Amino acid sequence: MSGSMIASAALKARVRRPALLSKLCKAEDLIHHFPNGAYIGWSGFTGVGAPKLVPMALADHVEKNKLEGQLRYSLFVGASSGAEVENRWAKLDMIERRTPHQVGKEIAKGINNGKIKFFDKHLSMFPVDLLYGFYTMDRPKNRLDVAVIEASAITEEGGIICGASVGASPEIIQMADKIIIEVNTLLPSFEGLHDITMTDLPPRRKPYLIMSPDDRIGTPHIPVDPDRIVAIVESRLPDVTNDNAPEDATSQAVADNLIEFLQHEVKMGRLPANLLPLQSGIGNIANAVIGGLAKGKASFSNLTVWTEVLQDSFLDLFDSGHLNFATATSVRFSPDGFKRFYKDWDRYYDKLILRPQTVSNHPEIIRRLGVIGMNTPVEVDIYAHANSTNVSGSRMLNGLGGSADFLRNAKISIMHTPSVRPSKTDPTGVSCIVPMCSHVDQTEHDLDVIVTEQGLADVRGLSPRERARVIINKCAHPDYKPQLMDYFETAERICLKKGWGHQPHMLNTVFKMHTELERTGTMKIDSW
Amino acid sequence: MSGSMIASAALKARVRRPALLSKLCKAEDLIHHFPNGAYIGWSGFTGVGAPKLVPMALADHVEKNKLEGQLRYSLFVGASSGAEVENRWAKLDMIERRTPHQVGKEIAKGINNGKIKFFDKHLSMFPVDLLYGFYTMDRPKNRLDVAVIEASAITEEGGIICGASVGASPEIIQMADKIIIEVNTLLPSFEGLHDITMTDLPPRRKPYLIMSPDDRIGTPHIPVDPDRIVAIVESRLPDVTNDNAPEDATSQAVADNLIEFLQHEVKMGRLPANLLPLQSGIGNIANAVIGGLAKGKASFSNLTVWTEVLQDSFLDLFDSGHLNFATATSVRFSPDGFKRFYKDWDRYYDKLILRPQTVSNHPEIIRRLGVIGMNTPVEVDIYAHANSTNVSGSRMLNGLGGSADFLRNAKISIMHTPSVRPSKTDPTGVSCIVPMCSHVDQTEHDLDVIVTEQGLADVRGLSPRERARVIINKCAHPDYKPQLMDYFETAERICLKKGWGHQPHMLNTVFKMHTELERTGTMKIDSW
Repeated sequence: MSGSMIASAALKARVRRPALLSKLCKAEDLIHHFPNGAYIGWSGFTGVGAPKLVPMALADHVEKNKLEGQLRYSLFVGASSGAEVENRWAKLDMIERRTPHQVGKEIAKGINNGKIKFFDKHLSMFPVDLLYGFYTMDRPKNRLDVAVIEASAITEEGGIICGASVGASPEIIQMADKIIIEVNTLLPSFEGLHDITMTDLPPRRKPYLIMSPDDRIGTPHIPVDPDRIVAIVESRLPDVTNDNAPEDATSQAVADNLIEFLQHEVKMGRLPANLLPLQSGIGNIANAVIGGLAKGKASFSNLTVWTEVLQDSFLDLFDSGHLNFATATSVRFSPDGFKRFYKDWDRYYDKLILRPQTVSNHPEIIRRLGVIGMNTPVEVDIYAHANSTNVSGSRMLNGLGGSADFLRNAKISIMHTPSVRPSKTDPTGVSCIVPMCSHVDQTEHDLDVIVTEQGLADVRGLSPRERARVIINKCAHPDYKPQLMDYFETAERICLKKGWGHQPHMLNTVFKMHTELERTGTMKIDSW
Repeated sequence: MSGSMIASAALKARVRRPALLSKLCKAEDLIHHFPNGAYIGWSGFTGVGAPKLVPMALADHVEKNKLEGQLRYSLFVGASSGAEVENRWAKLDMIERRTPHQVGKEIAKGINNGKIKFFDKHLSMFPVDLLYGFYTMDRPKNRLDVAVIEASAITEEGGIICGASVGASPEIIQMADKIIIEVNTLLPSFEGLHDITMTDLPPRRKPYLIMSPDDRIGTPHIPVDPDRIVAIVESRLPDVTNDNAPEDATSQAVADNLIEFLQHEVKMGRLPANLLPLQSGIGNIANAVIGGLAKGKASFSNLTVWTEVLQDSFLDLFDSGHLNFATATSVRFSPDGFKRFYKDWDRYYDKLILRPQTVSNHPEIIRRLGVIGMNTPVEVDIYAHANSTNVSGSRMLNGLGGSADFLRNAKISIMHTPSVRPSKTDPTGVSCIVPMCSHVDQTEHDLDVIVTEQGLADVRGLSPRERARVIINKCAHPDYKPQLMDYFETAERICLKKGWGHQPHMLNTVFKMHTELERTGTMKIDSW
């Protein structure tokens, strides 16, 4: 099949190694590279930079030929790929195994009804563990069968220029026997924006000599052995992203509390006047915080950002003049955000670096730079553990992501959350502050600050019983303050009496708020 | 008082900056440096290298003058100090606040009955957070009032030569307004064994350019401003250590399973023939593992060690000829072990480096070197979370230590534990495998391998439900296998039906084994 196609002018401009054009194919001609049970790696991170044509062609193939359940794959992507693609795969029962992160209704459904074997993993570690062969122990030579990588361009040497994300593409390419490249000629080329380092195995691993968010230590492309490229496909499909979650009164109140705290830290000399590099997660509180900084709610300037993914609010922060430099592994803007970004490309270009997720999320660099880490949990408990992943301990949302990479290693680790969420029947039916997290992803040893719209608990240097009082008093919603304090004081009295009082708990009733939520539709209870 | 004492010849030989000898004092003359409420830092780690004379003089002072409860301090030590000293302080109610780790019956009692405000913290982070001022937020200038540091010697420039541990001494010295040095002339000088780096604050922090366990990047001493040294005391008290926990049939069976696994990894090409640097915790299983390697149970040679504390078994491993180099932040040998060590000093000297705990436990270096991490938990759950600290979720043992520094960042993260422990009335009354850990210090995202005397569960790449089956089948004690499998399968059935089945749990009954243990003296139950 290959070699029979004629390349478009757009594709010729992007593929600067002409010999590779002889491998030009249509996506539907590549089905034979994907036998049932294959181990597949995709590019992509937070829904951008993922392959589109080839996965869609495979889904069409399964659908047309009624092969549901007969072509199932182990799928490895840096984080979430395009939800529209992956949801189709999930619906067509094409995913046997998936790691380390996902976004999409159908995928979550498949995971929680037992069809998809999913596990989440620290995003900094996933590509390295993949390279160690830990996820391919039953494959010949411990390798992936095939990688499908979206590229902006291919260089003269055959190097891959990534798109809007780098993610785990370097390691997936290192691990794959066959590589298929989707060159996206619809989107502007991202060439020059990336700083690529490959992962060595110990004992040959070297330090990441990054001392500032704008340091470059790599190459602009991912080096590839051209002989392993089995096909080139031209894609003209856009990344499908959504609008950002809008700020509301609650998220703005959380952000105000948080910005006030940062001002206090500067005043006390524990942070420099331009703070330290900011990491910010996804969601409306994150947007409100970064938006608040952009609106000049505090007089911080010369800010820098060291994070995992950039959202629209960072464009506002650039435009406000307060942000000097930002680096991440992915730019996941809204459709309007991408328009802004492409339109003012020249203005943003010099202020931005995209790196592999092994680098953007590496404890080595997060600790060195003294990053300020900010994330939103499912729930936080009175002793400052947090659940980032499983509702009621059991139901997977999206996965751990990079939350623990940042919260364990940041100089100041901040969990921001509304104090309550609505249940189906009670507008304040779910308290985000609970006696014990039903699943622990961040430990009490990791978090410094919990902040809600009610207030901010600074738990640095506090013992667990001190933490409980400050978290309940400052952060819990008034509807839950009395019952949480009742839990804590009862547990404290009982446990101190037994000489077990370091972190008082009543294990027989500790999850009563969770079980009552399921039974009655609210976490409000009469007694413990 | 100072200047009135005449230095012994032994002390003169150790204090090579003669001007400092004018600050020679008796410990009992230093009480005035310790007003009630003072923030104090001590040297010491795992019971060695901690100050002895000055703390004892303070305890004597409180005892003699019946000042119990009137002189209470916030006490910061890298990890545990000498238990005999700290137990006295706890008994005399002299400890208001303590972090990040402790060993001693009276201290644990004070923590669990609510007298001592204790919190545990990752040992790699404690010294840095201290330096950030996070633990001294209510002190003028965010600093410690006084540090008491045991030293082997003082150099011509006034640099401190540590003893058998480095721990957090560099940061404690950086943070303290006044420094008291106990020069120990009883013990041989450890000069030359240390590689000291001080901690810079971001944005000025630099990479740790260590690429191999034997790399040196620092100085042999801790630089100090001599003007801050307020007193020198000569100490002739030994470090008080215990004999090591003896190996038994169970720990040897655990070790055999683990060594077999390492051999398999080498065979599969996932570890080099000489493995990668080993980290090993404290306890009889750790001794059995290292002892097993020393006895040549596997043919590994040219081994290296990157760990937190060296115990006697490492001397055996050196003597076996299989160990090339070891580095840690502390050497905590038994009394006999120290004798061996001093006797053959010249033989060990070139094969050993002691580093600050910020370095020995730093994620940056643990990840770079690809360390093999091995630790013992309180309990592990069926989805591979682990509890390292709090019995029944509430009662503090010793603290987190460096367990999470290593287990999060190691190439292969191993939890080794007996499958059961005795309760007061049932020799197998406590299962170390439980449905859900009553306290989570290591998350499911951190652990690769769980091993007991029953077998080894390799959970790399497995989804939670796969993990549960392999952990119960391979690791649980036969007395608990059926009831654990019953829990899991019941939870799985219920949760999958609800579409919550990623990590199935029954929150209303999940801690029944723990609560029944308290009620009946055994975790064996009839039904869920």
